[in-house]
Amino acid sequence: MSPHNVEFKGYALTDPSKWNDLKVTSFQPKTFQPEDVEIAITHCGVCGSDVHTLTQGWGDTKLPLVVGHEIVGKVTRVGDKVTEFKPGDRVGVGAAVGSCLQCRACKEDYESYCPKSISTYNEQYPDGIVTQGGFSSAIRAHERYVFPIPDEIESRHAASMMCAGLTVFSPLKTHGAGPGKKVGVMGIGGLGHYAVLWAKAMGAEVYAFTHDKSKVDDIKEMGADHVVDTGIKDFHKDLARTLDILISTRDVFQEDTPLNDYLSMLFVHGRFITVGLPDSNNSLPTLHAFDFLPCLMGGSKIGSKKECLEMLELARAKGVKPWIEEMPMRDVGKALKALKENEVRYRYVLTQDIM
Amino acid sequence: MSPHNVEFKGYALTDPSKWNDLKVTSFQPKTFQPEDVEIAITHCGVCGSDVHTLTQGWGDTKLPLVVGHEIVGKVTRVGDKVTEFKPGDRVGVGAAVGSCLQCRACKEDYESYCPKSISTYNEQYPDGIVTQGGFSSAIRAHERYVFPIPDEIESRHAASMMCAGLTVFSPLKTHGAGPGKKVGVMGIGGLGHYAVLWAKAMGAEVYAFTHDKSKVDDIKEMGADHVVDTGIKDFHKDLARTLDILISTRDVFQEDTPLNDYLSMLFVHGRFITVGLPDSNNSLPTLHAFDFLPCLMGGSKIGSKKECLEMLELARAKGVKPWIEEMPMRDVGKALKALKENEVRYRYVLTQDIM
Repeated sequence: MSPHNVEFKGYALTDPSKWNDLKVTSFQPKTFQPEDVEIAITHCGVCGSDVHTLTQGWGDTKLPLVVGHEIVGKVTRVGDKVTEFKPGDRVGVGAAVGSCLQCRACKEDYESYCPKSISTYNEQYPDGIVTQGGFSSAIRAHERYVFPIPDEIESRHAASMMCAGLTVFSPLKTHGAGPGKKVGVMGIGGLGHYAVLWAKAMGAEVYAFTHDKSKVDDIKEMGADHVVDTGIKDFHKDLARTLDILISTRDVFQEDTPLNDYLSMLFVHGRFITVGLPDSNNSLPTLHAFDFLPCLMGGSKIGSKKECLEMLELARAKGVKPWIEEMPMRDVGKALKALKENEVRYRYVLTQDIM
Repeated sequence: MSPHNVEFKGYALTDPSKWNDLKVTSFQPKTFQPEDVEIAITHCGVCGSDVHTLTQGWGDTKLPLVVGHEIVGKVTRVGDKVTEFKPGDRVGVGAAVGSCLQCRACKEDYESYCPKSISTYNEQYPDGIVTQGGFSSAIRAHERYVFPIPDEIESRHAASMMCAGLTVFSPLKTHGAGPGKKVGVMGIGGLGHYAVLWAKAMGAEVYAFTHDKSKVDDIKEMGADHVVDTGIKDFHKDLARTLDILISTRDVFQEDTPLNDYLSMLFVHGRFITVGLPDSNNSLPTLHAFDFLPCLMGGSKIGSKKECLEMLELARAKGVKPWIEEMPMRDVGKALKALKENEVRYRYVLTQDIM
């Protein structure tokens, strides 16, 4: 128990050979600091990062480990220096809980790129305490990493915005999605469906790329102007030099993944942004400098608080709602397995059930 | 002879096994059109593209073939629809002589990216005539591809601006080089030395990367603020997340070329722009999506007329002069060989000697 009667326990990985068999385990939270906010978690979305981490795809993890970083809950306690929040506020936390706040990145609203950025789980604070994620009862985070949720947005909808939503909102915003721009989205899952929703809400013309015919009607209902079947040979040819932005949510690449075909669809100085992060041993297919002739390829890491607030305002103003499936937190293993097997439509959100 | 007493002959490749043994050969010029300008060539710079083409590194070439695409000369004839030029004008021609002028790229001042762009040499016009380059007596080009040279810029200085100069000016301009920006330049040869000169003239802070100690004094004299010795282990570490733009002139990559170390020097959303184009069989080293996390990588192809005029105005206004070595056109083979062996300081410019 914390001095404020918040108990910290979560669905934790204890044996990496059973990656989705998570057991409720107590853990020591971050040492409470004057800039910190403590939150009783009500909802947490299930992200591909959780799978990569639990399966040790991004490297060996600390144990026991609670994942989950699409968190919404209620503030239970604030530090003396906290100015933005008070107990009872409904807030969100995403994939990071801290950074140095002193470097150029932190000062220029790129805090997710701070070299000292602290991930929401599987990272260590300077005092040795390991960060534990949102499939848990409660979390503490620095105020900069806590986002107020507008009253008009339900918690179940806000949860997956904290990572999936923000991760695609940030590059869309950065690279100028808006009226007159053509935005492509590769892979319409958790992140991709948000990319379609945001790009439409921003006023862009949206091209959704999928090989999954069972999703076509959904994707049209989400607002995509064009749904392109990537199973059709040479599907990219009619779109050569058309797109201004192409968001790739793909997180597995094979040597024969036709990345150059995707790049060929970009107009001059168009941007191919990969938001999916493959396992460490999964390189991009071979590329030649020629493949970059008309365009740029880049990555993107989560997003800033500034962008998160803009995203929430866009969702509020335009009534954007993600397509989610809710289940109780005890079903986390089931949700993770279904996500890994690509069965989710389009994001699982777990609701609190730890007593 | 053309009706205007211009004879078309040039130093041509006739036997690919003797790539730099070029022989004066007559050729048939472009069929003169109402939008065309005919130019008696006085100067032509020697570009790495000439070497890649003559050595068949970018594929088999047409024969006989005259290369050279850093051309300056005097207008001898203009078509009826030409509005910008009159005989006697001093003008330049770069790496392209035509495009469709109808597509989005052409209309938005990205004509060098037109899918129907016609290279200055080794390309075929719709009527079958092969384009022949500037190591020759004369050339014809569409008015859009002819650039007026300001009186203050000597022809010998303007020549290599037409390709080397423009090729690095364009990405510097596109990606925002200017006061407050940190610009890196990898490889200080023909293109690289222009990148240093332009970036300084634009007001940026310039980091020059070279392994060649014999160039350090020159590079400082060109105006680089920092000269970084890439022979020193971990040279990139102190510059992590520092640069806004990094122009790479490298046109050979090995699997162990540490491209990710270079990418790691870019600040958030920083741009790595490769202007060097390796041989077709020379891929980039293996990359992982993680390598693109903070930054973007892209290519750039020559530049537009609009950018060329801006570049010439910058050179005029700031008195920017390239570092060149002049020699008569008959020494083209010698110049090409020395360029291939990286002996040039920093660009060869050939002067007309075809009688």
